[in-house]
Amino acid sequence: MTHLSSINTPDDLRKLPQNQLAELATEVRRYIIDTLSHHPGHLASSLGAVELAVALHYVFNTPDDKLIWDVGHQAYAHKILTGRRDSFATIRTYGGLSGFPRMDESPYDAFGTGHSSTSISAALGMATASRLQGNTTRQHIAVIGDGALTGGEAFEGMNNMGVSRANMLVVLNDNGISIDEAVGGLSRYLTKITASPKYNRLKESVWTRLGGDKDSDERHHHTINLFQRLTFMAKTAVLGAPNLFESLGIRYFGPIDGHDIDSLVEVLSRLKGIKGPKLLHVVTRKGKGLIAAEQDPVVYHAPGLYDAETGERIKECGNTGMRDCENGTAATNTIPQPHTNALKYQDVFGRTIIELAEQNPRIVGITPAMPTGCSLSLMMEQMPDRAFDVGICEQHAVTFAAGLAAQGMQPFCNIYSSFAQRAYDQIIHDVALQRLPVVFCFDRAGLVGDDGPTHHGAFDLACLRPIPGLAICAPMDEHELRNMMYTAQLEGQGPVAIRYPRGLSVHADWKSPFEKLPIGKGHCVREGKDVAILSLGHIGNNALEAARLLEQEGVSATVYDMRWLKPLDTDLLDSIAAAGYKRIVTVEDGVRIGGLGSAVVEYYSSKATRLPDIRILGLPDAYVTHGSVSQLQKDCGIDPEGIARACKENIIL
Amino acid sequence: MTHLSSINTPDDLRKLPQNQLAELATEVRRYIIDTLSHHPGHLASSLGAVELAVALHYVFNTPDDKLIWDVGHQAYAHKILTGRRDSFATIRTYGGLSGFPRMDESPYDAFGTGHSSTSISAALGMATASRLQGNTTRQHIAVIGDGALTGGEAFEGMNNMGVSRANMLVVLNDNGISIDEAVGGLSRYLTKITASPKYNRLKESVWTRLGGDKDSDERHHHTINLFQRLTFMAKTAVLGAPNLFESLGIRYFGPIDGHDIDSLVEVLSRLKGIKGPKLLHVVTRKGKGLIAAEQDPVVYHAPGLYDAETGERIKECGNTGMRDCENGTAATNTIPQPHTNALKYQDVFGRTIIELAEQNPRIVGITPAMPTGCSLSLMMEQMPDRAFDVGICEQHAVTFAAGLAAQGMQPFCNIYSSFAQRAYDQIIHDVALQRLPVVFCFDRAGLVGDDGPTHHGAFDLACLRPIPGLAICAPMDEHELRNMMYTAQLEGQGPVAIRYPRGLSVHADWKSPFEKLPIGKGHCVREGKDVAILSLGHIGNNALEAARLLEQEGVSATVYDMRWLKPLDTDLLDSIAAAGYKRIVTVEDGVRIGGLGSAVVEYYSSKATRLPDIRILGLPDAYVTHGSVSQLQKDCGIDPEGIARACKENIIL
Repeated sequence: MTHLSSINTPDDLRKLPQNQLAELATEVRRYIIDTLSHHPGHLASSLGAVELAVALHYVFNTPDDKLIWDVGHQAYAHKILTGRRDSFATIRTYGGLSGFPRMDESPYDAFGTGHSSTSISAALGMATASRLQGNTTRQHIAVIGDGALTGGEAFEGMNNMGVSRANMLVVLNDNGISIDEAVGGLSRYLTKITASPKYNRLKESVWTRLGGDKDSDERHHHTINLFQRLTFMAKTAVLGAPNLFESLGIRYFGPIDGHDIDSLVEVLSRLKGIKGPKLLHVVTRKGKGLIAAEQDPVVYHAPGLYDAETGERIKECGNTGMRDCENGTAATNTIPQPHTNALKYQDVFGRTIIELAEQNPRIVGITPAMPTGCSLSLMMEQMPDRAFDVGICEQHAVTFAAGLAAQGMQPFCNIYSSFAQRAYDQIIHDVALQRLPVVFCFDRAGLVGDDGPTHHGAFDLACLRPIPGLAICAPMDEHELRNMMYTAQLEGQGPVAIRYPRGLSVHADWKSPFEKLPIGKGHCVREGKDVAILSLGHIGNNALEAARLLEQEGVSATVYDMRWLKPLDTDLLDSIAAAGYKRIVTVEDGVRIGGLGSAVVEYYSSKATRLPDIRILGLPDAYVTHGSVSQLQKDCGIDPEGIARACKENIIL
Repeated sequence: MTHLSSINTPDDLRKLPQNQLAELATEVRRYIIDTLSHHPGHLASSLGAVELAVALHYVFNTPDDKLIWDVGHQAYAHKILTGRRDSFATIRTYGGLSGFPRMDESPYDAFGTGHSSTSISAALGMATASRLQGNTTRQHIAVIGDGALTGGEAFEGMNNMGVSRANMLVVLNDNGISIDEAVGGLSRYLTKITASPKYNRLKESVWTRLGGDKDSDERHHHTINLFQRLTFMAKTAVLGAPNLFESLGIRYFGPIDGHDIDSLVEVLSRLKGIKGPKLLHVVTRKGKGLIAAEQDPVVYHAPGLYDAETGERIKECGNTGMRDCENGTAATNTIPQPHTNALKYQDVFGRTIIELAEQNPRIVGITPAMPTGCSLSLMMEQMPDRAFDVGICEQHAVTFAAGLAAQGMQPFCNIYSSFAQRAYDQIIHDVALQRLPVVFCFDRAGLVGDDGPTHHGAFDLACLRPIPGLAICAPMDEHELRNMMYTAQLEGQGPVAIRYPRGLSVHADWKSPFEKLPIGKGHCVREGKDVAILSLGHIGNNALEAARLLEQEGVSATVYDMRWLKPLDTDLLDSIAAAGYKRIVTVEDGVRIGGLGSAVVEYYSSKATRLPDIRILGLPDAYVTHGSVSQLQKDCGIDPEGIARACKENIIL
């Protein structure tokens, strides 16, 4: 690492002569490949953005110039170049670097990201602030992928950016792929632009003819204008493809090769001198520099452990192909351990929806850009007409599902819990208010582990519970998941939300016969007499383990798997109140405020009876950091020991 | 009404010869103007869409063909033509027609709307359902305004529509204005297209040359293709304006005059024969047919009462210019009555933010397309550089505010409570998680009255309370609103949400001196001894009135204005518990599940003490219909009588 070892901040980088940047980029790429081979993380997208990170920090005066990485899992080179080289191996581990940019981690992380499509809005806000503060030279750059650009918020941002006087640059990092393959009209459009050899040749010659003309600012300005006008004309003439961005008032430049560092530096330097909103289209290759990753960027989005030379993936417990937005370490580290043959909940979902769809022709599946992660990919292969990846657009996914349901179909709309926050209004306004029988499968509910606070599915239970007419349930194991999916698609059920965690389920045999579950009914899974533990979903396995621990200490605990947050099983609550337990402990892996615990105390307080001694366990009223799920459960007191402790503290049996 | 009186369903309409449609449209327009002059509703946008409604029902086979009106307040002609002519005068009144399309009101309302930008996604869902069901002839039409098109979900829908084989048509109803003036690059772009006389001449001649060529289906198809190609070439050649929609793979037709019914019928009939996704750009005039409304479409969006001939507005109590998404009847009908000089909360917000911004140069104001409604328009006039209408895009509005805050500005982001559901993720992910000091002003919180279930601000308290680090408060009167705004913009406060209702505040003099409120502290506003009423926000005035009613019956009630939902005033709750009230009644105008009542029982149940007798009043776990606010409060039991009843029921004093 001749160069990299001396780069402690971008100031060091900016002292290098330009002809050494390509070597530096190679070193950074090697460093990422080597480090992630034994410290799993987001590999392929970061490899694609190495030259971009080098060039941006070389040309722009970060951190005074503001640089925002949309989504942020492609920003590893940025982290390495901005003072975090030596701590890079700690990425996504408890107490270590975050896998995403975070304002509180570094002044070079101008804005925290994690969810997609926010960067243009945030950069426009910053550029507007600079303008109001009288700073006319500060640059504001949003780097956004072609996948993230399909999110509606990115369009909203572009629509506003187009009429602003904001001094900002959008760098479109176009690799033709988001986490899975990018979809939609926009994606086709970008491909059309970049794939035309005719256009590229023309652009090349125009660019060459204008090169080196940098005498005066004004002349420079004029040249770029001319360059742009020519490329635009070329585009229109050769492709007949009108320019989406120009329509919105955004000056479009490109496409250019995102791995040609000299071009990048040259174009970025020129664009720096052009005021107002502009977009540079950069074409990159996801996985660049590691053949295996270039060939299969979906798998290598987050491949887990692999051989740093060959790229060959190293199988380990739980490293079974969980490929999106997470590394490949064991998906669930909690005690109790699942059976060694247990499938992930995701795979159970993916196989079960096919099984149900074979029986029920009304069933269709929808995912906003996470087909591999949620395993709808299985249905997309087997029933391509009936399974839809709509791209990164949770809002559209939900209303699209509502439209399907309004015409008699039975949609299963699978969205990661934290991303579903994007569709909160559509769940209320388009689905529940109209009593349309959409089945929501909220994947990655609860703690997700290494991805941290932007990705924990912490709020779903609390924010969904107030929605009238929406049934909400969570399976304690894969058989319950299957039965909930089966029950939800029976006619006349109205909308149902099923939420389950990332990772392994419980049993050796996932394929249980379908059974209709009574809606709104919980059940007892372990009998005891001293205390009652009421749990919701997979975290109930921790409750069961807690009961075993308590037994060893002479405390007898009953465990109720409530199954449904809504309708709440008030008959069961009545019988629990009547049973005379010394304490009731509720356990959930969502925020303590507003979820199962709240529902239980709301109900008991509505009865004239004396309220039992109730303790509510769940996520705290704070953002939970990143780390292993078992570590985070421990921090939150919802690991088996924590639950056991809450059951016996200050109780005289 | 020669024609209209015989139109009971669109079937009747389709029996008319085409040359009578213009007369019918005139009658429908007259009927709308006459009826709304004494039954207030959404006037201007409905007047602009009369010919469109007539032509769509004439050409398409509704309700088998699916017709979705985005937002829906422009669909009055549609309602009149689809069996609701005689009940039209009941629109937006309790028990009467809804002001928006509703699936449960009519089979002709293919999808319920209210919030913006959902129609394309829903229509695509329906078109996909038809395709899967083997129906290749059914048409699916989304009518969307140029304002609603700026919402990100519309773009998400178009992005997916562009690559689908869906048999659908988007009708872009372009009047250059949404509720206030439309903003952004898209709006400029549409203006550019429609304003070019050169282009329009060219289009006209191409169109004429191709007219009447309807022999065979195939030929017809070919002609349209040619027509489209020519117009597209014309556009590119004459305007240099590339086509946004074509970029996304959507075939673009137009623009055509949306008040020329023959053109509409002809073009729609032709488009009917063209498979796949397409967009027709129709130019209309908001307020068409009533001069006053054409001249000031913002005021006449929902003008309240007016003279049916002259259009002159008739002032009445409360009809003080509340112009968006509501009629002009008295804004608040609740007992107790506000002082006759009282301002609306909106105006207090609008004046106060200017006052604060004069003192604090960091303050900026943001509204997503509701400047008049929320009164940020006042600041936009006085401080145009520091107040931003970003268009219909709540997501962008919030992240834009976050970007501003990240660079040291103090944004006030004003969003209607129910529309803020659109930005739930951004509030969590971009603002609260990063502790950015954005001040949210959630207007139209609680029951909004005539606009009904899509617009009630029912869920804000419940869904915001679980968000770590977000302070939440609600003013009981305008002085509290001012003090909350003042307190929230003091440095070091972090994000704060202030929610307040639509309509009149309380006192004669709104302009109280600013006072810093202690965050998380409530206070007693009326002393008593038998029962304690804990209220949050403006509904506390009903609690005070309830206490007066109770006094007449010999029951002595204390009223606590809690002010802050979060942080919750636990000291006050402790002292209330210690005071030995026979009952505690909590009152809020949000859903009972998860709000103030839940917070109070959560807290008490967390204490080892015996829980007091608590009753939680608020909105039920059901969608509240439309009607006057006082009627709806009565239905929900949060009117003064309802509160009083809850205080004394089954209590022995």
